[in-house]
Order: sequence, then structure tokens, then C-alpha cells
Amino acid sequence: MKKLINDPAHYVDEALEGLCGAFAGYDKRGRVIARAGGPSPGKVGVVTGGGFGHLPVFAGYVANGMLGACAVGDVFAGPPVDVCHQAIRAADGGAGVVCVLGNYGGDRMSFAQACEEFEDDGGATATVIVADDVASAPPTERAKRRGVAGMVFAFKTAGAAADAGASLDNVQWVARHTADRTRSIGVALSPCLIPGAAAPGFSVPGGEMELGMGIHGEPGVERRALPRADAVARAMVERLLADRESHGGRVAMLVNSLGATPLEELLILYRAAAALLAAAGVEIGIRYVGHYATSMEMAGCSVSLCDLDPEIESLLMQPTDCPFWPR
Amino acid sequence: MKKLINDPAHYVDEALEGLCGAFAGYDKRGRVIARAGGPSPGKVGVVTGGGFGHLPVFAGYVANGMLGACAVGDVFAGPPVDVCHQAIRAADGGAGVVCVLGNYGGDRMSFAQACEEFEDDGGATATVIVADDVASAPPTERAKRRGVAGMVFAFKTAGAAADAGASLDNVQWVARHTADRTRSIGVALSPCLIPGAAAPGFSVPGGEMELGMGIHGEPGVERRALPRADAVARAMVERLLADRESHGGRVAMLVNSLGATPLEELLILYRAAAALLAAAGVEIGIRYVGHYATSMEMAGCSVSLCDLDPEIESLLMQPTDCPFWPR
Repeated sequence: MKKLINDPAHYVDEALEGLCGAFAGYDKRGRVIARAGGPSPGKVGVVTGGGFGHLPVFAGYVANGMLGACAVGDVFAGPPVDVCHQAIRAADGGAGVVCVLGNYGGDRMSFAQACEEFEDDGGATATVIVADDVASAPPTERAKRRGVAGMVFAFKTAGAAADAGASLDNVQWVARHTADRTRSIGVALSPCLIPGAAAPGFSVPGGEMELGMGIHGEPGVERRALPRADAVARAMVERLLADRESHGGRVAMLVNSLGATPLEELLILYRAAAALLAAAGVEIGIRYVGHYATSMEMAGCSVSLCDLDPEIESLLMQPTDCPFWPR
Repeated sequence: MKKLINDPAHYVDEALEGLCGAFAGYDKRGRVIARAGGPSPGKVGVVTGGGFGHLPVFAGYVANGMLGACAVGDVFAGPPVDVCHQAIRAADGGAGVVCVLGNYGGDRMSFAQACEEFEDDGGATATVIVADDVASAPPTERAKRRGVAGMVFAFKTAGAAADAGASLDNVQWVARHTADRTRSIGVALSPCLIPGAAAPGFSVPGGEMELGMGIHGEPGVERRALPRADAVARAMVERLLADRESHGGRVAMLVNSLGATPLEELLILYRAAAALLAAAGVEIGIRYVGHYATSMEMAGCSVSLCDLDPEIESLLMQPTDCPFWPR
């Protein structure tokens, strides 16, 4: 785990400066990444925030047609209240702001307080929590689940609805509706190292994988010898399908690298997962394969399914100029 | 280096099947990836080929506006003559085929024989060899240099020219002109493992980096303790600038992950490289940062510069539906 970094204390800001330099459309103001063009007057803004080290999550999805702004914390540490407040203001076009957040205590608390402050000043906010990781709590305790890669579906649909002129209530409903229909599960093959740390905060022993490990190394549901890719796909897809309330239907599927796992392996996993869905009578309407939500150089991947309806599918397919979202 | 794979013997074909399933526009016929829509009648086809394990290089760049077809070998092993011949035929729209190849002996020999067979059947071909890796031979021996990530610039410009209706000679000239103006250098931080192999064929000792190592682990020019990212960028950019015939000017810059190196680190490196170019009076006209030419899970990155002129810049900016090329 050798890293191309400078002083670990500057890791986050230098990477964000690189993001703004390398890609059009981003504006960095302290630890807030906002649209270079500013918010759209009269339109709802969609905001998120969280710890750093998951690019393109979170800041990469700030773009026309997606997020309005993002509050960025330190590596694997949520942003403080004032940064969340600045992000909300940066996305405010006068029609209110919807915060779409992964289900992490620190992020939720900071944004709750920032929303309160923004409302005290006369602004309007709504918040949607994404809790898509089926491995992190049973269906009876969905509210306890962590937010992982499936968050990007809600970022996309809420952002598309907001830019189309939807009201605060409607954008909130779209984000909630998308989040409710999204399920994810990951497998970790190796850990990542927080810049400046002497050693990883977690490990995955040689030859093993951990099913359901979180994107910060939170414990998963099962550790076992790494089987073939087809069996990994089966373990993941079976848990996702078992968690759905419906059978059949049409989904968007995201096969996401946690960082070091290369495209070749994602494609082998996609192939297996697609066959399992076909066998289960589930149609794949939209496919996403690549690096969408990572943990720096962690090896492993996640699979997310979003149950499509015509509205979600249409919003996912709306154009955005986000460089990390496919055409 | 744990891998999400099945039988190593099926690694290449399963990944290619995944590519065709996960992304629109690809058609797999044996070990040839061609455009799903077939060649454009009356237009020149652009073909490449090479060993597997470098996605999106090579097959990922088959798309409208880029390559017409690609011959795929085994991992790190060039495709045989018959596969090259099939790829040439798959891209043939009746106006001839330009083969744009990385400078590897096996690939060149197989394509040379395949071109001969295709010409024996009445077809027209031209070949351009890309030799962009400045670390692999001195300027006086440019023809000995390996082809690395900078190949993608020639794929893009040649493909755009071909789809715009340019003649065989003109497409060849565009590819040659782009290749001549492109320079790359890489640093390797860790090796990769060929599926089924017991151990990597090369290594990079703990705490060290190898400047100029090739994408198959070919020896570089210098091995040393891994310095800060800014110093890594300096070592790379200085060598690229020293190799240019001109000063100042306008370039396209590609900062490319070799696989495991995450976006955060690429952005930190981009930031440093951009500052060095600015200090040298070189303007960055187009920026590419991401996974463009990899070696599976190898850690490290490369920087490529292409000296822009109005024609190259225009061709790089032409739209393509390739999922691995930015908007």
C-alpha cells in the first residue's frame, strides 16, 4: 500500500484541488465543492457530504444534473457543521435544499444542525438518508443500514429532478423513493491505509474475503476463503434478491470497484451477476460498471440493485455533465 | 493480489463477455471485439490489438468515433495472426484499414502478416507504430521505445478522422502525426499477477518505486525510495519536457492509473504535474485523469503529453460514444 501523496495533512485539499484543475465544472471553496456555475436560481439544490477517500463519492458527483454541492470531511471522517452549512448555502437557488446522505451518525448529526441553522435564516431543507447496505443490518432494521455505493442512484435521480424544476417535496420524494428501492452488498479482499497512519485499521487475511465489509472496514457478515468469481457473485446477488420485497421486475445494476480491483475483474463479476439475475427473472434495464464509490486502494467490489420504475429510469437516463457518470 | 476470477483459462473471454454485456456498442467474435453496428461503408477502419490485461486498452476503445475493431491476445501476450486478420476484416468498410499498434515485436509481426494476407485478398492497409514511452529508449532510438498509455491519443485522432471520411493515407498521417507528438512515462509501485501464475513476474521492493517500468514489468530507468508525489511528478514531467523538441506550446495531458492507484492519488499527481507545466510555459489544453491503460492490479501511474496543434485538438474533442473516453 504505497501511496503517491505529499504531506498526509494536505491529502484531502490537494486531491480536491486536483479535481477542480483536472475536470471542468467544480469549484472548491475551503472544504466545499460546488458547481462552478453556481446554483440554478429558483431550483432546488441537492447536497451531500461525508468523509473523504471514496472518490468519485461524494464530491465527484457535483455537476449539472446531479449534486449542487458537497461538504467534504477528512479521510473517513464526516465534515463539521460549518462546512455542511456552507455546502447547503452553496447549493441554494432559493427553492430549498435536499440533503441526501449516507447513513452515518456523524454526517447525519452535522447536517441536521446545519439544516437547522439554515432554516433559522429562512431557508428550507429536507433530508433523505440512504441505507442501502443489506449486509449491515437485517430487513427488520433497515434504518440501521449503512449507506454505500447505491447512494449514487439517489444522487442522480434527485439531481435530475431538481434540475428539471421539481419542488422541494418532490425532490425529497424522488430521493427517498430511489433510496428505498436500492440495495447493495460488498466484498472486501484487502484493506486500505489512511494517509499518515502506520497500518490499516482493519485487515482481510491472505486468501480470504469478507462479505459485507463496509467501505471504512466495518465488519461484514461472513469471512471465508475467496471462492471463484461466480461464487462471489452468487453470494452477493442471492442476498440482494432475498432482501427485495418483489420478484422479477427491472433493475439498474452497478458493479463497483472499491479501488484496486481492476475493470477486468468487475466485468467477470458483472457477467456472473447478470446471468444470476436473468435466471431469477430480473431484467437489467441499466448497467453501470466501474469506479463509482471507492475506499482508496482497497481491493474488492460491490453490487447494487435499484428497482426501476418509469420515473426512476427516466431520471437515471437524463443527461448530466458529471465526468464520473456514463453518457 | 487476490483476484475475483474463475478458471484462469477463461479469464480473457469472460472479461470480454462482461464488456459486451455491460456496455453497449461492443460485439465479440472469438477474440475480436468489433463495433456492434459493424464498419461504416466507404470509411476507413482503425484497428489495434495486443495482449490482454490493460483495459480499457485495447478493446475498450472500440467505439463509434474511435477504433473499428481490436484483436485480443492472452494476458500480456499478443494476438495470433488469424485473430489480427479477423479484426482487420471486421473493421473494413471498403476504404482500407489503418492498424495503430503499440511498439511490441509480437503484435507488429502478427499484424504485418495479417495485413499481407488482407492485401493479398485485395484489401488496403497502412500501419502506424506508437512508441511513446520515453523511459524505454533514448531520443536517438525512438523507434525502440515501447507503446504505453499515450497510444490512446492516436486511437482517438485516427478514429475521429476515419469516421469523418478521411482517406487511408490521411488517417495514417493523423495517427503517425499524433504518435510522433506523444510522450509518456510511468512509475510502478507494485507488480501485478498474471491469472494462474504462482507469483508476479517482477517486483518493486517495499518502500520503492521504479521510474519507467513498462506495463508488463519491463525494466525502467531508475529504482529509488518512493518520494513525495510532487517529486514523483517532477521526475516524470522533467523527463517528458526534456524529450520534447519544442518549448512552450499547448498539450493534452493524461494522468493514468496503472490499476490499483486510486483517483485521489492521480489528482494529487495531476495537481503537481500541472504546476510544473505552467512553470515551464506549457499550456494544458485538454486534461484526462483516470484509468485509461492499466496492468490489472498494478499500482502506479503514467503521465502522457501530446503536443497539440489545431487538427489534433479538434480530433481529440470530436464526440465518441466510447464509454471510457470523456465527454
